[in-house]
Amino acid sequence: MYPARLQRLRAALAQAKFDCVAAIAGPNLYYLTGLSFHLSERPTTGFFPLSGDPVIVAGSLEESKVAGGAPYAVRGCYYTDAGGPVTAYREAAQALRLSARGGGLARLGVESRRMRVMELRLIEEAFLNPRIEAAEGVFAVLRMTKDEQELALMRKAVDIAERAVQATIATIRVGQTEREIAAELVVQTLRAGSDTELPFAPIVASGPNSALPHAAVTDRAIQRGDLLTLDWGAAHGGYFSDLTRTYAIGEIDSELKTIYELVKAANAAALRASRPGVSAAEVDAAARQVIAAGGYGEYFVHRVGHGLGLEGHEDPSMHGQNETPLEPGMTYTIEPGIYLPGKGGVRIEDDVVVTTRGAENLGRLAHDLTVIGG
Amino acid sequence: MYPARLQRLRAALAQAKFDCVAAIAGPNLYYLTGLSFHLSERPTTGFFPLSGDPVIVAGSLEESKVAGGAPYAVRGCYYTDAGGPVTAYREAAQALRLSARGGGLARLGVESRRMRVMELRLIEEAFLNPRIEAAEGVFAVLRMTKDEQELALMRKAVDIAERAVQATIATIRVGQTEREIAAELVVQTLRAGSDTELPFAPIVASGPNSALPHAAVTDRAIQRGDLLTLDWGAAHGGYFSDLTRTYAIGEIDSELKTIYELVKAANAAALRASRPGVSAAEVDAAARQVIAAGGYGEYFVHRVGHGLGLEGHEDPSMHGQNETPLEPGMTYTIEPGIYLPGKGGVRIEDDVVVTTRGAENLGRLAHDLTVIGG
Repeated sequence: MYPARLQRLRAALAQAKFDCVAAIAGPNLYYLTGLSFHLSERPTTGFFPLSGDPVIVAGSLEESKVAGGAPYAVRGCYYTDAGGPVTAYREAAQALRLSARGGGLARLGVESRRMRVMELRLIEEAFLNPRIEAAEGVFAVLRMTKDEQELALMRKAVDIAERAVQATIATIRVGQTEREIAAELVVQTLRAGSDTELPFAPIVASGPNSALPHAAVTDRAIQRGDLLTLDWGAAHGGYFSDLTRTYAIGEIDSELKTIYELVKAANAAALRASRPGVSAAEVDAAARQVIAAGGYGEYFVHRVGHGLGLEGHEDPSMHGQNETPLEPGMTYTIEPGIYLPGKGGVRIEDDVVVTTRGAENLGRLAHDLTVIGG
Repeated sequence: MYPARLQRLRAALAQAKFDCVAAIAGPNLYYLTGLSFHLSERPTTGFFPLSGDPVIVAGSLEESKVAGGAPYAVRGCYYTDAGGPVTAYREAAQALRLSARGGGLARLGVESRRMRVMELRLIEEAFLNPRIEAAEGVFAVLRMTKDEQELALMRKAVDIAERAVQATIATIRVGQTEREIAAELVVQTLRAGSDTELPFAPIVASGPNSALPHAAVTDRAIQRGDLLTLDWGAAHGGYFSDLTRTYAIGEIDSELKTIYELVKAANAAALRASRPGVSAAEVDAAARQVIAAGGYGEYFVHRVGHGLGLEGHEDPSMHGQNETPLEPGMTYTIEPGIYLPGKGGVRIEDDVVVTTRGAENLGRLAHDLTVIGG
């Protein structure tokens, strides 16, 4: 699996005209090597050249992990806390220059959304000023379509999250605070078998707070007549799920019911629109059209979704300007919402995968309005 | 509170000869504004100039958060997903240039261990090449001494962690695995009221595993005669606690009792040594001396502690080479340990604050050897 990923990376580098690409501790390095490093004040960087062995720079405490765990031949360059990393980065640059075709490294790709100024400065110093350019695209294209192994992990992450929310909503009562509900949701996610590092802290937003797409959890107690939005996820083998459901606490007013049904229809429309060859923008438009036709277009204030996998947000971004055509294996969220300031909001979010003929929901949690709160 | 922090920052900038400092989504921006942003592919950056209003660049979804929540006048520059952030960073640069004394920004400080290449490139492009330099130190000095509000949050974070461990140890039985105990400790920490983003995943290390300072949680079942080390923390209002206790599972052998008493005495010695004007190194030495005098100096293999607050590890680092003099309000861990390979280890960790005359433990969990396991 990993040698095949390295081969795909090299093909992508050649196409994008990079001589080498660098990845720090995090999902790209994990994707390419299966090695998990902690992002800390001690820099770790993997260099993947077009030809020759990859090189990994890491603290000396990681030497046994790299030497024992790399899935193909790699050159390790290690440093101690006392010595610091400068020399190890220089060694890496030297090794890469020697093995590069044509004897030099002209263009080096980096993860500009992840790599820190700290690692950038070490690379600039060691590599004698190559052209350093953002290479997100190379990694994104590589990771955007998932193989069967990845999809199995994502299905499991969705299943864990769904069992967690079912256990949680059974405990929700009027008078509980958002914070208490958030704690219970985390507890149930861990009990359901999630990796302990969750994708993100859940959003629990009640009443008027549910009108904020990115609400912070507060000490507000839930009341009859509230909408209650839960946005949560689980992790399994490093892969994430990311779901949202909005519940009714007792009887809710008729406008809130109206927007619920619109969001539900918009979600279904986006899933129906998803298939190979259709653009991300068309999927966004399919959901937006439903909400606009219902008269609430101005209250759907964000894109319809985002890619999902080893990261909570990855490519493809499912927004109205993204003309990327969908391909089988692409995984993303579908999460239309309507937010009425001061009153309440609804969002229904699923995780889906593009198949050869359409798209499939990775989960099975119902979309119908569910009344909870005892 | 926040205006006072801004004033202190400006004084620190003037001293370090920065015209402006930039902070991305994370603890420094939260410290300065009370605004909590999620680190994502949508860059957020706060610019804090020596004179003139701070400027915050953020995605348009954050506009109400900034406009409604900023604790002093700030200029907001927002961008949509469709438009992208380039123009907003240019607007920010323009606003900062207009308000800068002397009409320019010569030296801009950034968080080099946190800021990503993405934000750096946006800043370089918008600011017409100022000198960009690492400004970790400016933030570290600012955040190192805590005010009363911060201390109240930290006391609460310690209290939550202490209640969590009491509830957890009541459930521990011989035959349980480290992993089961770790899950229970997380559950109890959340039930006790922690923020859902815990400072770190707990360490639960039993028997020979307790001899590893950074043990990974395993499926080992605890046995009579084991030492059991729990290293865990809670979060409250963004502030962290970080505690460790080592327990005896039934009767333990006499050497393990000996090292327990030495570590307990070393912890007390480090607290006694802590007071304004004393260096971090002297606190480390006070603990080390007790353990060395007991004949176990070579088994105390790490620094005595680290700064604690909005991050799990911050300044001051309490190691033998740090001559930083302590000041009232500084908060750090005291966590001496003795690790006997293959046999077992003891660590006792408290969170303390320097006062005008000495130092005070932020918690009250006993240090006496406690036998658990039913």
